[in-house]
Amino acid sequence: MSAIRVGIVGYGNLGRGVEFAISQNPDMELVAVFTRRDPSTVSVASNASVYLVDDAEKFQDDIDVMILCGGSATDLPEQGPHFAQWFNTIDSFDTHAKIPEFFDAVDAAAQKSGKVSVISVGWDPGLFSLNRVLGEAVLPVGTTYTFWGDGLSQGHSDAVRRIEGVKNAVQYTLPIKDAVERVRNGENPELTTREKHARECWVVLEEGADAAKVEQEIVTMPNYFDEYNTTVNFISEDEFNANHTGMPHGGFVIRSGESGANDKQILEFSLKLESNPNFTSSVLVAYARAAHRLSQAGEKGAKTVFDIPFGLLSPKSAAQLRKELL
Amino acid sequence: MSAIRVGIVGYGNLGRGVEFAISQNPDMELVAVFTRRDPSTVSVASNASVYLVDDAEKFQDDIDVMILCGGSATDLPEQGPHFAQWFNTIDSFDTHAKIPEFFDAVDAAAQKSGKVSVISVGWDPGLFSLNRVLGEAVLPVGTTYTFWGDGLSQGHSDAVRRIEGVKNAVQYTLPIKDAVERVRNGENPELTTREKHARECWVVLEEGADAAKVEQEIVTMPNYFDEYNTTVNFISEDEFNANHTGMPHGGFVIRSGESGANDKQILEFSLKLESNPNFTSSVLVAYARAAHRLSQAGEKGAKTVFDIPFGLLSPKSAAQLRKELL
Repeated sequence: MSAIRVGIVGYGNLGRGVEFAISQNPDMELVAVFTRRDPSTVSVASNASVYLVDDAEKFQDDIDVMILCGGSATDLPEQGPHFAQWFNTIDSFDTHAKIPEFFDAVDAAAQKSGKVSVISVGWDPGLFSLNRVLGEAVLPVGTTYTFWGDGLSQGHSDAVRRIEGVKNAVQYTLPIKDAVERVRNGENPELTTREKHARECWVVLEEGADAAKVEQEIVTMPNYFDEYNTTVNFISEDEFNANHTGMPHGGFVIRSGESGANDKQILEFSLKLESNPNFTSSVLVAYARAAHRLSQAGEKGAKTVFDIPFGLLSPKSAAQLRKELL
Repeated sequence: MSAIRVGIVGYGNLGRGVEFAISQNPDMELVAVFTRRDPSTVSVASNASVYLVDDAEKFQDDIDVMILCGGSATDLPEQGPHFAQWFNTIDSFDTHAKIPEFFDAVDAAAQKSGKVSVISVGWDPGLFSLNRVLGEAVLPVGTTYTFWGDGLSQGHSDAVRRIEGVKNAVQYTLPIKDAVERVRNGENPELTTREKHARECWVVLEEGADAAKVEQEIVTMPNYFDEYNTTVNFISEDEFNANHTGMPHGGFVIRSGESGANDKQILEFSLKLESNPNFTSSVLVAYARAAHRLSQAGEKGAKTVFDIPFGLLSPKSAAQLRKELL
C-alpha cells in the first residue's frame, strides 16, 4: 500500500512537530511544506520541499491530506475554508467559543469540494473533549472537571512579556492539588476559578525596572490574572534560559458520577507532556490518517474528533486491532 | 423523538445494572427483561415486564436494542449470534483470546439479518481497549501498560472458594505502586507479571479447617496465584460481610511515548469504580444508543468500540456537542 501523502501549511513549532511525527509513522510521507516566507529562507529538518503557500493549489493531485499548522487567531479562520476547497485538511483551531462558526465555514467549503476536513484536533480541544463526551455519556448523573497544567500558557506568557520593564517571562498554570484530590475522591465540589488553578510567573526584568510595579501589574491584570492566585518570581536571564525554555503542559479530565445504589464511579484521562506543540502535532498526524481513510470511503464535509472512530487513527487493520488490542 | 426501546437478556448483576443505567437516560426506555428462569419468580426493580428468553423472538417490532447480560464462558458464545438474528445487540464478551472467533460468528448473523451488534463492550475490553489504540496511534514510539485494580477479581475469588476448608473468600488484584510510579515517570520499564500486580485474599475458614494448609494451597495455585506475590488474610464471617461484599475495581492504561527531541509524553486513562458490574452496565447502555443510531443510518454487522465515534454515545446532537464540549 502506498504511503499517505501529507502536506504542511506553516512551519513553526507545530509544523516542525508534524514533520517529526510523520517520521514516526511508516505509512505516511511528507510531500511538501508550504510557507508565507520566502521558501529559500526556510530550512526544514526532513528532505521535503518548501513552497510558497500560494502555490499549494497546484499540488491537489500530490497530497492526500494537508495539515494546517497556523494559529487560531488569524491564520486558521482564513486557511481552514481556503484549503478545504482543494484538500482533505486537519487543523487545531482552539478558540472554543468560535468553533461552531468555524465548523460551518469549513463545512461549506468541504461539502462543495467533496473533501474531508477535521477541525479542532489536538488535546484540548481534542482528546480532552472526547473524554468530556465519554464521561457524560457513560455516567449521565455526575460532574465533569477539566484541570490544566502543570503547563506553560503561551497567551499568559505573552501578556506578561508585554508589560513595560519585562525582558522575558513565562507563565505556568498549576492545578490546585487540594481541589484535584477532592474531585478524585468523588466529593463533586463546586469550585471557583481561583480554587481550581493557580498561576506562576518567572520574569526577567529589564535593567532598572521596578519589580514591585511589574508584580502589581501582573497580579491585577483583568481576565488574565485577577481571578487567580498568582506568584511572581524574578530571575536572571541565565536561570531563565537554563530552566524555562521548554513547553511542558498537560492536565486531566475527570468525570465523577454515580450508578446503581449510589456507587461512586470515577473516570480520569490525563496527559503529562514535556512538549505541548509536539504532542498536538502527533495527534494531528493520527487524525490525518483518519481523514484520508474517510475520504477514501466517500465521506465529505467538516468533522470533529467526535465523529471519528478510534480504529481509523491506527495504521492497523480492524481485524488486527480486535486481535491485539481489544 | 420517541425513546430508544431496550430489552435485557439475563437478570443478574449486569442486567440489574443495565436496568438502573437506563433509568438515568431519559431518551431510553426498558421494554422487557428476558430470563431462563420462570418469569413469575423474577422480580425486577423497574416496571418492565419479564418474559421467558425463548419468547424474545416475538418482540422484534418492540425492541430497538437488546442488551445481552450473560457470561462470556457459555452464555454469550451462544446468545450473541442467536439474538443478532432478530435484534441490534450489545454484549460484554470478555474472553480476549476468543474475540476474533466470536466477532466472526456474530458478524455472520448480523450481516444476514441486517442488524448491528456491538461486541465486547465494557471497560476491559472496552474503554481500556480504546485507550490502548489511541495511545499507540498518537505516540507510535512508546510502550503501553495496562494495570488492573485495586479491585475484586471474580475468577480468582471463585478459585479460592473452591479450596477445601474455605467457607467464603474474595481476592483483590492490586497494581504495584512502585511499578506504576516508574511507568508514570516515563521510565518505560520491562515488568514481569510479579512486578506489575500483587494479589490479596480475605478468607473465612470452615470450622476446624487448617489455615496453614489453605494458605499454601492458595499461594501455589498454578496460573491463578503462583506467578504473583499473594497475601492471605483469615477473617471472621462478620468481618467478611461488613467489609468485603462490594465489587470495586478499576485500573489504568498508560502510554508512555516520545515525540520530537526525545520529549517524554505520557497519556493515562484510569477508572476508580465502587461497582464494577454497574459501571460495565453504564457503558453497555451508552453503546446501545450508538447501535440504535448506526442501525437507523443503515449500517449492519458486528462492530467493536473501535468502530464507533464517541459522538454517537451521547444523547446530544453533533452541533450541541461541538458547542458545549469540544
